[in-house]
Amino acid sequence: MNITQIRNATQLITYGGKRFLIDPLLAEKEAYPGFAGSVRAELRNPRTDLPVPLATLLAVDAVIVTHTHADHWDAAAAALIPTSMPVFVQNASDENLLRGQGFTHLCLLEECTAFGDITLSKTDGQHGPDEAYANPQLAARLGDACGVVFTHPQEKTLYLAGDTLWVPAVEVALRRYQPEVVVLNAGWAHIIGVGPIIMGAEEVFKTHRLVPQAQIVATHMEALNHCLLTRAALREYVDANQFGEQVFIPQDGEALTF
Amino acid sequence: MNITQIRNATQLITYGGKRFLIDPLLAEKEAYPGFAGSVRAELRNPRTDLPVPLATLLAVDAVIVTHTHADHWDAAAAALIPTSMPVFVQNASDENLLRGQGFTHLCLLEECTAFGDITLSKTDGQHGPDEAYANPQLAARLGDACGVVFTHPQEKTLYLAGDTLWVPAVEVALRRYQPEVVVLNAGWAHIIGVGPIIMGAEEVFKTHRLVPQAQIVATHMEALNHCLLTRAALREYVDANQFGEQVFIPQDGEALTF
Repeated sequence: MNITQIRNATQLITYGGKRFLIDPLLAEKEAYPGFAGSVRAELRNPRTDLPVPLATLLAVDAVIVTHTHADHWDAAAAALIPTSMPVFVQNASDENLLRGQGFTHLCLLEECTAFGDITLSKTDGQHGPDEAYANPQLAARLGDACGVVFTHPQEKTLYLAGDTLWVPAVEVALRRYQPEVVVLNAGWAHIIGVGPIIMGAEEVFKTHRLVPQAQIVATHMEALNHCLLTRAALREYVDANQFGEQVFIPQDGEALTF
Repeated sequence: MNITQIRNATQLITYGGKRFLIDPLLAEKEAYPGFAGSVRAELRNPRTDLPVPLATLLAVDAVIVTHTHADHWDAAAAALIPTSMPVFVQNASDENLLRGQGFTHLCLLEECTAFGDITLSKTDGQHGPDEAYANPQLAARLGDACGVVFTHPQEKTLYLAGDTLWVPAVEVALRRYQPEVVVLNAGWAHIIGVGPIIMGAEEVFKTHRLVPQAQIVATHMEALNHCLLTRAALREYVDANQFGEQVFIPQDGEALTF
């Protein structure tokens, strides 16, 4: 498989002979204000430019949208991606949203969703702490977010955890699928008064502790106002803890082969 | 009350008219090797010199030793502190250790221990993750560690959490005592393969979330090889999360009055 880091959680993944665009955030640098109520909201998003021409991102067989927060599915993505593109979504709510945007080829991710000879398995996550989901307004804002496991007879198993904290569902997925490659959204995004809503350095360590043979790819970093963990800080952390050889922290535009 | 940060978890606290020396680590800079098996073990401890003359530290009414790891009670402390000094310890094991070192005035911290008109209340903690305590060798190495709540009719309530992660016992103590001042050992010390064994930035936030009116003092930072959180990084974190006014991160030698 080939995983090319694009920007934030946007990646191009070639797996089982098919090309997938993950969580497209396609706007130009600083097109949007920072997320209200999050840390450093005075900074505009995305923080950086796309590292490849748009055409490269659109030359895919399918798009996977783990959830429809604006940093995973933005207005630019909705406008630029052909509406006939197959798009995998997590639930009926996101399906309806995209249908309203004109997309006609929507597929619900389920426990065992076939795409040719590739199997896509939806996994659960939790996009914030329990305390936040106890507050109806915050719960609605954070919403659902899923992960995806890719399996194919000729490929290593790949688990994209999606926007989630370290919750039992993540442990369940790691134990169940025993992925050889794990993509973690590790930018440690923070909401004021809520705390982190995605993983940070400690959760990269916890993943490594549970699946020590897995190769971990850290993404969703250095592209948004509210992501506090830098690539350099994560590199220092994993090296100090002596598991740096298992962790890849690609720059935007960098490709990894597993 | 007055809290003077000395170095690592060592503090001088004046409370209810009495002077306490907390967790004395009295050796000279770099007297000891780094902790084996911890991150950056090639660095020697302590990382810095004491900021005040030794005599200042010995002019106290009592010593409190939250546990007897070498960064809280070192050979220099055992040699330099008069053996007649009242020393509060957490349990019979630490009491026996200090008795063997010649100390004659040992007091067990309990739920309600009087020292003049000051009440010292022992609190529980957990000095590492559950996974580590499931391993008998690691459990023995990490051992027990306590916290202490100070109360006095003319003083704010002070809670020293001690060397602990964010565990239910800490939440219990915060809810029960509603301390106005909380001292957190927030250096995010890491053991290879185990992860953090004391609090870091996220746990400072969790404390603030539970007792938002409390003034938090962060300590046990930048003095040992395995403490990964710097004062500057914690300051940046608490300011970005907009609770920086509640958090004090004193330099060694700096005094705070509450």
